[in-house]
Amino acid sequence: MAQQHLDPTDPTAGTATGDALAGYLRARATEFLRALRLHRETGGTAGGGEESVDAARALRRSARRISASLHTYRPLLDAAWAESMRPELAWVSGTLALEHAYEARLERLLQALHRLSGATALPGRPAAAAGPAGPAGGPPATAADRASLTVGAAKAGALLDRQLTLARTRAHSTALQALGSSRFHAVADKVAVLASEVPLVPAAPATELHPLAAAAQERLTDAVAALPLLTAGHPYNAQALVHGLSPDPSPHPQDGPWHQVRLLMRLHRYAREVLHGDTPVDARLLTAGQALNRHRDASEAAAAAAQAARTPRITPATAYALGVLHADQRHEVEASRFAFQRAWLKETVEAV
Amino acid sequence: MAQQHLDPTDPTAGTATGDALAGYLRARATEFLRALRLHRETGGTAGGGEESVDAARALRRSARRISASLHTYRPLLDAAWAESMRPELAWVSGTLALEHAYEARLERLLQALHRLSGATALPGRPAAAAGPAGPAGGPPATAADRASLTVGAAKAGALLDRQLTLARTRAHSTALQALGSSRFHAVADKVAVLASEVPLVPAAPATELHPLAAAAQERLTDAVAALPLLTAGHPYNAQALVHGLSPDPSPHPQDGPWHQVRLLMRLHRYAREVLHGDTPVDARLLTAGQALNRHRDASEAAAAAAQAARTPRITPATAYALGVLHADQRHEVEASRFAFQRAWLKETVEAV
Repeated sequence: MAQQHLDPTDPTAGTATGDALAGYLRARATEFLRALRLHRETGGTAGGGEESVDAARALRRSARRISASLHTYRPLLDAAWAESMRPELAWVSGTLALEHAYEARLERLLQALHRLSGATALPGRPAAAAGPAGPAGGPPATAADRASLTVGAAKAGALLDRQLTLARTRAHSTALQALGSSRFHAVADKVAVLASEVPLVPAAPATELHPLAAAAQERLTDAVAALPLLTAGHPYNAQALVHGLSPDPSPHPQDGPWHQVRLLMRLHRYAREVLHGDTPVDARLLTAGQALNRHRDASEAAAAAAQAARTPRITPATAYALGVLHADQRHEVEASRFAFQRAWLKETVEAV
Repeated sequence: MAQQHLDPTDPTAGTATGDALAGYLRARATEFLRALRLHRETGGTAGGGEESVDAARALRRSARRISASLHTYRPLLDAAWAESMRPELAWVSGTLALEHAYEARLERLLQALHRLSGATALPGRPAAAAGPAGPAGGPPATAADRASLTVGAAKAGALLDRQLTLARTRAHSTALQALGSSRFHAVADKVAVLASEVPLVPAAPATELHPLAAAAQERLTDAVAALPLLTAGHPYNAQALVHGLSPDPSPHPQDGPWHQVRLLMRLHRYAREVLHGDTPVDARLLTAGQALNRHRDASEAAAAAAQAARTPRITPATAYALGVLHADQRHEVEASRFAFQRAWLKETVEAV
């Protein structure tokens, strides 16, 4: 059985049925409602308080998990309900994620500019490690932070600051509007119902979850098998920067399969949560997932640097700094693939 | 004995004395004179024929080897003669090397621009491999080659082409002037004497060469031990691009120790040649040396891209492309250090 291959030592393996799914969905729905109440109480003002940020994160977190479960365990759930619910939950988590994403992207790019200038870490911030960005650790760099930069790096930083802060502010307004919309109220109403009553199909309570969880894992495994892992495992393969100066301004198409694996890994992780509850996630799976998060972040940061370089009337020094920054983030993309390859192979070898 | 550690299976180890050194120097001096005659016959015109290029390479090759032997085996040679000879030989090989260096640098940068544009290799040229640049394979890219590039990449390529072709032409004139100078004639006269009569000290014919060769190896080993090899062996350590946007426009000081090891490795190799003649160089030593050549080439190419970006009145698109190119070459620097670390450790482990 595929699931036993995944975790042969788990004493609960092989016992979960639709009842476990219902319990999981009720718990996530309750979390969603609690986070929503907290978010309303803390106001959700721009650049908001820490509580408001935490509440938004908890909302996204539960929305993602409900949505993932509707996908993985679809045969056990009322089909019409599940199909109408998923895009709405994706809209909620996607809309709420944008503000944080712009903030983290700016943080990542300013940290990189400092690193590339040979400067020490920004005051009061963690050292510019190659690892994934932690939770946003403060406001973006001030003008004083940039005193140690060259004119080009400072101007590039100021440009990115303007553009990404504007994008973040807009994302914040969009999120607030979304949370006040009738569309969102309809979602919240449905989640409130879900917190007490999960629309299972009649056969669901006796249906085992494991084959469906195993199928989710198989989709992940298949997608990983299609990745160019051999190349990725070869350090300094220089693949991520191919097309770095391509005339095509769209995001790198080579990143797509990796982003897809990132999503499938998340689905796999949430599918396991339904079976194993709060059991800590396998450390190697966690490392692989973090590598893919970093891949996504670096890919989007590189695109933001390239985008900023197309701003009219910038100076050559600014453009040069943005070019260096773009290439630096594309190498972060390549480094993340290498890290994923190492983590993934380690897992496979040790699981046999 | 250190030499035995170096090559315990060599049947000739422990037998070479000053006579071997004299034979080696006479042979190199003869090569020098032959190459000089060939160079004069083939004219040495600008961008010259293949024979002229070969002759110049042979001149540099023998000058470097004579100079290295004067250094490593100094105690066996007339001190005043050796000390007056070395800087003159360094001047000859340095002056002759520049033209080729500019040509290879341009070739490397244009190849990189094509790679970064997602284009295939330049017509009639080897694929843009990450390995060391081969012998220059043709004229610089034409305008037609650049049709597949973005405006920025094409303009960056044209700018580098102008600047490095101008530098190469100047280097060629300088080399021709040097070869016609009285200073060079004095060097050639001394080499002509060396071809028949090597100024050994009286004790030299009975003096063993191995301790001096071992000392050259030890200088290499010590210099390698001082390199940050632990970091270099960690893929994607992002060290080579630190200071990539630093206000200091001088070449990266972090490259210095690696350049120094490259020179010491060459001295070590030539010291071995005196002992072992035409025995093929150890494959791992060769790999390590090639990695350091690539390190030097990428370091200088990165500096040329940064230098070009300071040209007045370039467009932002050109500057952006040069920034990407600079970062790409700095990552080549990092990749070369990684390759050197691997080759070097392999050698050490297997030599024990």
